[in-house]
Amino acid sequence: MTKTNAGRFFEDYRVGDVITHAVPRTIKMGERALYHALYPARHALHSADTFAQSCGLPFSPLDDLVTFHTVFGKTVPDVSLNAVANLGYAEGRWLTPLWPGDTITATSEVIGIKQNSNGKSGVVWVRTTGRNQYGEDLLSYVRWVMVRKRGDGPAPETVIPKLMDAVAADELVIPAGLDFSAYDFDLAGEPHRLRDYAIGEVIDHVDGVTIEEAEHMLASRLWQNTAKVHFDATNRPDGKRLIYGGHVISLARALSFNGLANAQMIVALNGGAHANPCFAGDTVRAWSEVLDVADTAAPGVGAIRLRLVATKGAADALRDPEGKYLTDVLLDLDYWALMPV
Amino acid sequence: MTKTNAGRFFEDYRVGDVITHAVPRTIKMGERALYHALYPARHALHSADTFAQSCGLPFSPLDDLVTFHTVFGKTVPDVSLNAVANLGYAEGRWLTPLWPGDTITATSEVIGIKQNSNGKSGVVWVRTTGRNQYGEDLLSYVRWVMVRKRGDGPAPETVIPKLMDAVAADELVIPAGLDFSAYDFDLAGEPHRLRDYAIGEVIDHVDGVTIEEAEHMLASRLWQNTAKVHFDATNRPDGKRLIYGGHVISLARALSFNGLANAQMIVALNGGAHANPCFAGDTVRAWSEVLDVADTAAPGVGAIRLRLVATKGAADALRDPEGKYLTDVLLDLDYWALMPV
Amino acid sequence: MTKTNAGRFFEDYRVGDVITHAVPRTIKMGERALYHALYPARHALHSADTFAQSCGLPFSPLDDLVTFHTVFGKTVPDVSLNAVANLGYAEGRWLTPLWPGDTITATSEVIGIKQNSNGKSGVVWVRTTGRNQYGEDLLSYVRWVMVRKRGDGPAPETVIPKLMDAVAADELVIPAGLDFSAYDFDLAGEPHRLRDYAIGEVIDHVDGVTIEEAEHMLASRLWQNTAKVHFDATNRPDGKRLIYGGHVISLARALSFNGLANAQMIVALNGGAHANPCFAGDTVRAWSEVLDVADTAAPGVGAIRLRLVATKGAADALRDPEGKYLTDVLLDLDYWALMPV
Repeated sequence: MTKTNAGRFFEDYRVGDVITHAVPRTIKMGERALYHALYPARHALHSADTFAQSCGLPFSPLDDLVTFHTVFGKTVPDVSLNAVANLGYAEGRWLTPLWPGDTITATSEVIGIKQNSNGKSGVVWVRTTGRNQYGEDLLSYVRWVMVRKRGDGPAPETVIPKLMDAVAADELVIPAGLDFSAYDFDLAGEPHRLRDYAIGEVIDHVDGVTIEEAEHMLASRLWQNTAKVHFDATNRPDGKRLIYGGHVISLARALSFNGLANAQMIVALNGGAHANPCFAGDTVRAWSEVLDVADTAAPGVGAIRLRLVATKGAADALRDPEGKYLTDVLLDLDYWALMPV
Repeated sequence: MTKTNAGRFFEDYRVGDVITHAVPRTIKMGERALYHALYPARHALHSADTFAQSCGLPFSPLDDLVTFHTVFGKTVPDVSLNAVANLGYAEGRWLTPLWPGDTITATSEVIGIKQNSNGKSGVVWVRTTGRNQYGEDLLSYVRWVMVRKRGDGPAPETVIPKLMDAVAADELVIPAGLDFSAYDFDLAGEPHRLRDYAIGEVIDHVDGVTIEEAEHMLASRLWQNTAKVHFDATNRPDGKRLIYGGHVISLARALSFNGLANAQMIVALNGGAHANPCFAGDTVRAWSEVLDVADTAAPGVGAIRLRLVATKGAADALRDPEGKYLTDVLLDLDYWALMPV
Repeated sequence: MTKTNAGRFFEDYRVGDVITHAVPRTIKMGERALYHALYPARHALHSADTFAQSCGLPFSPLDDLVTFHTVFGKTVPDVSLNAVANLGYAEGRWLTPLWPGDTITATSEVIGIKQNSNGKSGVVWVRTTGRNQYGEDLLSYVRWVMVRKRGDGPAPETVIPKLMDAVAADELVIPAGLDFSAYDFDLAGEPHRLRDYAIGEVIDHVDGVTIEEAEHMLASRLWQNTAKVHFDATNRPDGKRLIYGGHVISLARALSFNGLANAQMIVALNGGAHANPCFAGDTVRAWSEVLDVADTAAPGVGAIRLRLVATKGAADALRDPEGKYLTDVLLDLDYWALMPV
């Protein structure tokens, strides 16, 4: 009997199962310093206590993607160790900010399952919830992955969950106390407010960042994401390591500061595709498209729905004539952020 | 109309303008841990609360260069995005230590301007001031850069500021409470006190550090310095990224521990030149020349004025017979530090 | 007279000498964040305050190897600057946990000396003790190194210390308050308790990590270990830098989570050999052999003695028929850890 974790196979998931993910994690300011070293992150609310306080918060919360990556990392040993592909995200909502000193735990409920016609793999849907040390929900999202079958037993009954195309604007959770009525645009870095953005507008975020192996490995480890494809150069003939998709998300989001400096907090993840793999040496650029705008009940706070695309190619180029992602495209993410109206 | 920041051109500076730099930044112990990981920094006052307390301080402040880099990083989008060259520094003074938890903001006043004879660029002088969350000045320095012109309009009236060759010893600001009368030389690492150093003495700091791309990018991002030349490998045919000059400053200063372990705090920047560009793969060494020594009013505290040279070559070699910097020389910095008398 | 430290030579050690190592160091949560970024560390007690509290501790202490590396780093300028080889460790015991905010100092007593027959070098044994700011001992261990002679003077009288083969189980120091009687195996990540491990059992930890130059340099600097072989690419024709042996220790220990997730705290270092040098590009794997198990006086807390092997090759392969380490083997470490019974 081996003592190491071989990961779950398709047969090990049953709809309704709730998986407790191991290794709780306390996050403090050290993780924030590393986040700033790993990504060109400049959104003021996540950079300065004073700015966060001027927005009604007690001090600056961790970047919303720190919550996402840490929760995601917890799920890897139980959900994606034998995954062939990370297929999609839906219904992601940030429910409480992550404050320095908080300890994160996570569970996932299996909400869907469908064997592939080849009989060798299948798709598993899980709804993952991250919680803080008070048991409050920090983040909830649905992810579906393709997982290998261990044997060739019969297919389970297919259950495909009904998922929203996008989180509705009135279901966004605004952090308690958030107030943009005294928002300082000079300190935030740009003058553009929600009403300055038009639906359909495309923003080229201009800058590019070339990724090194050391950087994405530091980042993936920081989130305790230990999937071997990110670390073991002997997995591929060219010695390259597949970069954690979340690294590209954080990189693109940080680059989007240039043009979206006031899209301060991410509150929902409507969907996302890791269109092509990313490797060290790639120079990542980003562009955004405004998909929607909405008001919220919080003073001065609006919501902007954005498509964020990370690419090695040109801005505004996404799919070929057949509808397939262009090979330069790395990420196509659909999210809601909060912005002064 | 684009929403991204194209940076200021020569025409956008007017003498007397005060620019508020964006994105305040809270600095805590995470940044200190990263500073120790990025540079071979060992000066005891910045390493241990107990040592700082034995020197009269409440606890250990952040390295003085953390203040410099963070303030400098704030200025990049407004001052050096279209800069052709970073020409010089003058009149730099550290005015208050940076304590963990402090939030840094910065402004720059345009104090000089001179169009080049080619009509395509010009020199801009700014005096930058960094402040903490109480509005206290942390650091003030003058920097001048060569900036591209956008068009071919008329030249502005030339204003060249009068700058001191060096900060006078009696204008150095000693941190409140600093007291070296019970200084522990064993714990500091070397027995040499101010009176052991002779003006003109040259110290070879012996050690060399070879720089990797990942390291200087982590460092530049940590200070929210997002100038694209540091990150985008597609900017140059050889795929190398130009290393932020401040990375070389911190590296050389850390290497200078070996021979100057008791030059504990930097209090003034008299001048500096980034003599040649630095790239990944370069092995950086450092040597210092003692330029001056002085007493201060604080108990046991003296000041030492040093030339710090970072080089890929030999110690004590600086210029060719025509007075040009040798191609191996990366940095020539003139600063005051505090040392037990 | 030079002001830089040339390091001690064999002649500079005398049995009974106590060396005060320079540069005390305050360690906080930033160092923990970096530890998680540098190593795939997941042991729950060092990851989450809540988990540590459920084990009777006030909050999560720093990883035990942070104490080791920081103390070791302090000794480098005095013990191993002119060392030809790091020959062994013995009698290592962790005596008090390292809490965030603690300041570490270290001293070493010379306990043995033996000139080599070639007259050009000799072996020096030191017992190093790390202490916190209250003067409490954090860690004590014996290390012996081969050091160059400066000249060709007479050999000193040989003194070879008597060292234990291993720390006896009843001499292990259990951190005050540690209690595994309410241990949560789900959150810890594996169900195996002390009685599930058999003496002689070998565990292949499965995962591999390929090391980059930037990573091991960040790590070595973090511990203020500035031995030039780790940083200066001009030291070797191939430009590679010798990786600090402690980096391999932490990497292997972190990898051992997969199969030994409940070996939560390291309390003794019985011995260790850096069998072969490690370089960037190496893919490090790890396997463990259970050497012993023991009870302790603390509730629910047992001790497991483990051989931890880091290798570029196969699990369970260690020595050739002549008893020499296989060339793939990087580390052979013998330690005690605490585990729920």
